[in-house]
Amino acid sequence: MTLPRVVIERCHYLAECSEEPGAITRPFATDSMKCAHERVGEWMREAGMTVWRDAIGNLRGLYRGEGRAALLLGSHLDSVRDAGKYDGPLGVIVAIAAVQRLHDQGKKLPFGIEVLAFADEEGLRYGTPYLGSRAVAGTFDERDLGRTDAAGITMAEAIRSFGGDAEKLARDRISGDLLGYCEVHIEQGPVLEARGLPVGVVSAIAGQSRFRLTFTGEAGHAGTVPMDRRRDALTAAAEMVLAVEAAGLTKDGLVATVGKLDVEPGAANVIPGRVTMSLDVRHPDDETRTVVCEVLLARARDTARRRRVAVEIEAISENPAVRCAPRLVALLSQAVKDMRLQVLELTSGAGHDAVVMSSLTDVGMLFVRCKGGVSHNPAESVTTEDVAVAIDVVDRFLELLAKP
Amino acid sequence: MTLPRVVIERCHYLAECSEEPGAITRPFATDSMKCAHERVGEWMREAGMTVWRDAIGNLRGLYRGEGRAALLLGSHLDSVRDAGKYDGPLGVIVAIAAVQRLHDQGKKLPFGIEVLAFADEEGLRYGTPYLGSRAVAGTFDERDLGRTDAAGITMAEAIRSFGGDAEKLARDRISGDLLGYCEVHIEQGPVLEARGLPVGVVSAIAGQSRFRLTFTGEAGHAGTVPMDRRRDALTAAAEMVLAVEAAGLTKDGLVATVGKLDVEPGAANVIPGRVTMSLDVRHPDDETRTVVCEVLLARARDTARRRRVAVEIEAISENPAVRCAPRLVALLSQAVKDMRLQVLELTSGAGHDAVVMSSLTDVGMLFVRCKGGVSHNPAESVTTEDVAVAIDVVDRFLELLAKP
Repeated sequence: MTLPRVVIERCHYLAECSEEPGAITRPFATDSMKCAHERVGEWMREAGMTVWRDAIGNLRGLYRGEGRAALLLGSHLDSVRDAGKYDGPLGVIVAIAAVQRLHDQGKKLPFGIEVLAFADEEGLRYGTPYLGSRAVAGTFDERDLGRTDAAGITMAEAIRSFGGDAEKLARDRISGDLLGYCEVHIEQGPVLEARGLPVGVVSAIAGQSRFRLTFTGEAGHAGTVPMDRRRDALTAAAEMVLAVEAAGLTKDGLVATVGKLDVEPGAANVIPGRVTMSLDVRHPDDETRTVVCEVLLARARDTARRRRVAVEIEAISENPAVRCAPRLVALLSQAVKDMRLQVLELTSGAGHDAVVMSSLTDVGMLFVRCKGGVSHNPAESVTTEDVAVAIDVVDRFLELLAKP
Repeated sequence: MTLPRVVIERCHYLAECSEEPGAITRPFATDSMKCAHERVGEWMREAGMTVWRDAIGNLRGLYRGEGRAALLLGSHLDSVRDAGKYDGPLGVIVAIAAVQRLHDQGKKLPFGIEVLAFADEEGLRYGTPYLGSRAVAGTFDERDLGRTDAAGITMAEAIRSFGGDAEKLARDRISGDLLGYCEVHIEQGPVLEARGLPVGVVSAIAGQSRFRLTFTGEAGHAGTVPMDRRRDALTAAAEMVLAVEAAGLTKDGLVATVGKLDVEPGAANVIPGRVTMSLDVRHPDDETRTVVCEVLLARARDTARRRRVAVEIEAISENPAVRCAPRLVALLSQAVKDMRLQVLELTSGAGHDAVVMSSLTDVGMLFVRCKGGVSHNPAESVTTEDVAVAIDVVDRFLELLAKP
């Protein structure tokens, strides 16, 4: 069997490690993650790597080189609820495949390769993402250890029962001479497909701002309260939804989304008294994102004032944009060019472990085309041909990096 | 204790009959309704009435007169979930109080008075309203007997276990020489309060159209799908919410409401793929209502087409407007005038048992001011003074009706 075919089949095989029969749901520090570690650990060992699990629960494999420097490759093994097979695992398994090829050829590079299979990127179990990469980058916030999951189990307990050690997370941090962190990931968007390209080189990961807006008006009987006496929370929210969309259309690379909107009391014959909605704004330039957020929040306040409803604005999170290292972007682009493919640089609208890793070392990312741009969905799909290109690009990238 | 005070205290006492401790929830054919029947039945008997329960489960009391003709008075004893104390019960208890006053004076009128305490007006348990009045008016749809409640109990079973008989509902229909049906009810709106009036005479009950609209676009990652490639179901729905509001403001007496709106999948980082929303349009003129609905549904289709999403429109219900009988409106207005109060005729935006009863006989309604126009809410509130006016108006109405 060819290596690309092996990668695809491994992604399918890994999908069996799940908390839910018939679906893929693999949260942090669970039995399904143990199942994934057994399988991925075996593949790492086959590829000639030394394998261990760190304190937070990342699975790590080292393929020794001739020098002391190290290149980091990887992605995450956890998933969202009812996930697809490729978001995360593809990057881990392609990295192992690239190492496997070196191992099969008995080749050593001037640097070691450490493959990182992160324990948590999606944040499904504890509502906060990047647990694995934060431990490795040394940016883990120990206050998170007290967080509880839906069953009331603290993160510290979960780490312990998974065989880790919440008190030794500091030891997970990687130090030493690093060449960078490089991650292969499905695009999760439609751009590569639209351009007819199997892979693309990520130039930056967009910064992201998240807010929760709550409009509070007054509930009332839909038949008896005249229109001009209403303080309808939903019409205020609807105005805001359209303002968010309009703002998103004003600049290239900008996306602005209301994905969640809850209406109370939510009955056909009752005027909505309260609406809670999410706001998510992303752009590769932080200044642009900040200005757009300010304009939108001012608009929310203005809408509320004009409509005699109250608005409460909560800032949920803010992540600045991350630039991929020009050196790694150039090497990945050269590798793509050497495959006689057109080089497309694109921005990632989704966050990735590379965001966190950028505080530790240079980062680079290679996107692989996925069908319809669909992700976080069982319908996630990539072709064996595109995976072949991804492995070849990583191989070539390693060769280029190894040149003096 | 004065009679108005008795009425208020009885409304409070009846509030104890509930399926939920600490809240008022009294659905059709339940133990809480049995509790209500025991109390209300006792009050009817005290007022000199013959009391019985009919096949559907309405509690009925007859105060005999000197002739064979009958006037019907009443309202409903069931409630919405977490209801107030007055929506329904006030009309029943005021009717009993008016009869009590006749009985205390040993007075007989030239007509009998039948007080109807309807078993279901809100439709909480079986999702379809007016079960009680439909049986009395002879418009009950027997297919509804197969409906099941949340616990899977059919309506026929519920009627049986309440002591009724689903096969004898035809016997509940009232026939004979009827003078009309007159209902006292809280306004459930802010007009009387704004005008500083304790009561108002209802001229018509608005017709009502209900629809369910489902916009289906395409869910996607909020970070990776560019704005111009989105088919966002929520932005389409938001446009519609604002169009509904704008339409509602175009005509006097028109109300148009989106009270329920559900977003799928409903996550902050996912573009909404599907939105289901309610549409409720009411106006006292059927032609106006129909035209407004047509315009709004055309707008929904147009929005969907322009935004490349699908829209499915389901007609849920349509109730034509009901005119109160000019003869009863005139008598109620005269009775109000005789109390030295300004007569205000108003339209009811809410549906009432009177809507159904209008197919059997002439109907009239008297609205009582309620605090803040609030209803379907534990905060429902009326004053003893306003209840005193309502009883006096009903008394005077009976005197006027008794005149040759």
